[in-house]
Amino acid sequence: MADNTLIIIGGDAAGMTAASKVRRQQPDRKIIVFEKSDYTSYSACGIPYFISEMIKTAEELVVRSPETFRNKFNIDVRTMHLVTQVDTPNKRIKVLDKNKNEEFWQPYNQLLIATGGKPFCPDVNGKDADNTFGVSTLKSGINIENYIEKNKPKTAVIVGGGYIGLEMAEALLIRGLKVSIINRSAQVMNNTLDPDMGAMVSEAIRNLGVQLYQDEELKGFELENNSIKAVVTDKQSIPTDMVVFGMGSSPNTEFLKDSGIELGIKNAIKVNGQMQTNIEDVWAAGDCTETLHLISHKHVYIALGTLANKTGLVAGSSIAGEKTIFPGAVGTAVCKICSYEVARTGLLEKDLQELDIEYVTATIKSKTRAHYYPNSKDITVKLLAEKNSGRLLGGQIIGEEGAAKRIDVLATALTHNLTLQNIIDLDLSYAPPFSPVWDPVQTAARKLVNDI
Amino acid sequence: MADNTLIIIGGDAAGMTAASKVRRQQPDRKIIVFEKSDYTSYSACGIPYFISEMIKTAEELVVRSPETFRNKFNIDVRTMHLVTQVDTPNKRIKVLDKNKNEEFWQPYNQLLIATGGKPFCPDVNGKDADNTFGVSTLKSGINIENYIEKNKPKTAVIVGGGYIGLEMAEALLIRGLKVSIINRSAQVMNNTLDPDMGAMVSEAIRNLGVQLYQDEELKGFELENNSIKAVVTDKQSIPTDMVVFGMGSSPNTEFLKDSGIELGIKNAIKVNGQMQTNIEDVWAAGDCTETLHLISHKHVYIALGTLANKTGLVAGSSIAGEKTIFPGAVGTAVCKICSYEVARTGLLEKDLQELDIEYVTATIKSKTRAHYYPNSKDITVKLLAEKNSGRLLGGQIIGEEGAAKRIDVLATALTHNLTLQNIIDLDLSYAPPFSPVWDPVQTAARKLVNDI
Repeated sequence: MADNTLIIIGGDAAGMTAASKVRRQQPDRKIIVFEKSDYTSYSACGIPYFISEMIKTAEELVVRSPETFRNKFNIDVRTMHLVTQVDTPNKRIKVLDKNKNEEFWQPYNQLLIATGGKPFCPDVNGKDADNTFGVSTLKSGINIENYIEKNKPKTAVIVGGGYIGLEMAEALLIRGLKVSIINRSAQVMNNTLDPDMGAMVSEAIRNLGVQLYQDEELKGFELENNSIKAVVTDKQSIPTDMVVFGMGSSPNTEFLKDSGIELGIKNAIKVNGQMQTNIEDVWAAGDCTETLHLISHKHVYIALGTLANKTGLVAGSSIAGEKTIFPGAVGTAVCKICSYEVARTGLLEKDLQELDIEYVTATIKSKTRAHYYPNSKDITVKLLAEKNSGRLLGGQIIGEEGAAKRIDVLATALTHNLTLQNIIDLDLSYAPPFSPVWDPVQTAARKLVNDI
Repeated sequence: MADNTLIIIGGDAAGMTAASKVRRQQPDRKIIVFEKSDYTSYSACGIPYFISEMIKTAEELVVRSPETFRNKFNIDVRTMHLVTQVDTPNKRIKVLDKNKNEEFWQPYNQLLIATGGKPFCPDVNGKDADNTFGVSTLKSGINIENYIEKNKPKTAVIVGGGYIGLEMAEALLIRGLKVSIINRSAQVMNNTLDPDMGAMVSEAIRNLGVQLYQDEELKGFELENNSIKAVVTDKQSIPTDMVVFGMGSSPNTEFLKDSGIELGIKNAIKVNGQMQTNIEDVWAAGDCTETLHLISHKHVYIALGTLANKTGLVAGSSIAGEKTIFPGAVGTAVCKICSYEVARTGLLEKDLQELDIEYVTATIKSKTRAHYYPNSKDITVKLLAEKNSGRLLGGQIIGEEGAAKRIDVLATALTHNLTLQNIIDLDLSYAPPFSPVWDPVQTAARKLVNDI
């Protein structure tokens, strides 16, 4: 009965990008998408801006609705359908229709798993209380908004100082809450930046009015009627009206237990360059998969919209019989917290130490525009390069308006094995409103070449 | 008597970068710089912003004064000294001390020519009138400012719609003048952009209130007491209080006639990768030299601060005995006109036609930020690629805030022979305040790959 049916589990970026690609290549193919929520193709990255009310409605974050996919693209999207099991020997999946509360088996000819990630949250009593929130699905964002509207919280504790934690700190500050962040490491953005650069961000967010507790670990909660009254750390108890988890995310792959589909780091699905799993006719894409890091040559777990879109496109191509390959990523990420911009690509010092790669670093301070041009902002650039060859291994940027997007030159350089001298030689754009005559990334490369 | 003396002709970006580099490597070397004006190391690119009064004094454009070079760096800078002849067989130059109005011969051991460029201006009667202005040296900027302050002109005609012409149009609009531009081609930025992209800029500057005359050529001037009253074109006579030349620049190399130093395109000095001329012990750098274009593999004339700084650094290294090489450029340029940003890199359609390279192009419209993020601005990206290989050959960007600097990824891609697929695969940074999930340069690459 499966005929040539393509079944896709998950209706956000990776799943719907793949569905759309297959539809373009195979206009008559039967495509069914099972999505556990009410929404498809939304920008989870936009949730903090919905919470801050920079964006007025959750619907603005939706790129294409289930109706659009059904009516315009002939893609059979079934929302409120949760897939609970994959039976690969019999090529079928078990689906829970949450509206009817009925389970059924659905056969597939080809299967794409695009179930995304979920906020990591430690196993402490109270983590599922009424006023704890993760940030992942659009529904999770709507839950936060509804809670704020209804309960008018005055204080929030964010557990974790990664980029989602910091973006949510901005959003809640804008909403007028008193915001505290509990961060386990000595500096925020511990997995994003080296400690010296992280310290600059820690200082910046303190300047924004965030109460930042570092080197401090979540131990539990003080609860009352399933509502958290205080967050308990190894050092203190912090009263709060709500808790947001910003400790990173992990793949939604529990339902694949016993499926025979191989999982890798953090239980993310192992895939090849065509996004195929180890099981024939089963693909995976997006935040539920591992990513090959092009610099460390190791598999890593990176949950990012860019990779979800790229891997979804490649999965769709591959399912439609094309030969596109997703080569991997270099770990580029960017984040804005009020007026501060933070960007990074490649490897951190701790990654290089773990890989036993001898490296050198240099950090420079420059400006985003010519020194004399109005509104020239501060920018700090740190580069990491291989000791003898001078090959770029990583870059980190902190600054204000106009700083962060410069990371893209470094990401391009990294991907194609450029050396510091190659970066110095690049013919980058210059005019006083855009840059000093030496772009800050080149100034950093010049300093590091001189140091070598 | 020359001993080991290094003589440098020209005290701006290229000359002083070289002087500083030699000083760092050779602390005791005798270095004399002859500069025809009163100023050293200034940003000529900043002149339009001085005219618009975004920058209050001309001195703010000076990075290092002659006194600083003399006192802190032991570099013997002699301002108001014009070099009129180079006698290479006898290793000496003829210098006019403009203060004393005395000429003398100065021997050299090694010589660096860094005399820069000057505004190109057609040979018509009146071009040297009291109210005609070029934009090149800091003095030329001060002349314009003084003229405006003293004579309160109400109208200006800019001859030429290149980037200097457009930047000056912005500056004079800000100063309250009624500005007309006469442009010989059918669209502005004829040497910067393809006509389809140039048309967008033409429309944009008309929207700013500039009276733009295209397909129209300067024929002469109506003069009264050595002051221009009207600009005469092949179609009309335009009354005006002042005239600014924005027709590009040409190298300051007339004084090298009969020196034996080989000149190339537009009479720019021919140099090798170490910035050596054909004459032993004579180097050249900056806007007076040719540049190797890395994509066309032809020599071109590009007058830009970035190249002046880079070639000055390489010349200094080479003079000091190091082995650095300046590889060439890919023709990157960027320009801001009020809220509009324009950037380009690589080759134009007309360049590719001339080189008989088969190419394809695609143009896309996108946004600078996520579609739902406030202040997301328009951006148009055009890419040119080799027909069969898909290798990138050029890129052009027009947009508003946040658009132009994306050209740097394309410049990096061009320099290292990346294909469109390589660009699609790049791990560029994304977060809603910075970009759509596919960066516009990648969206353009995707469209062009699909077209192929």
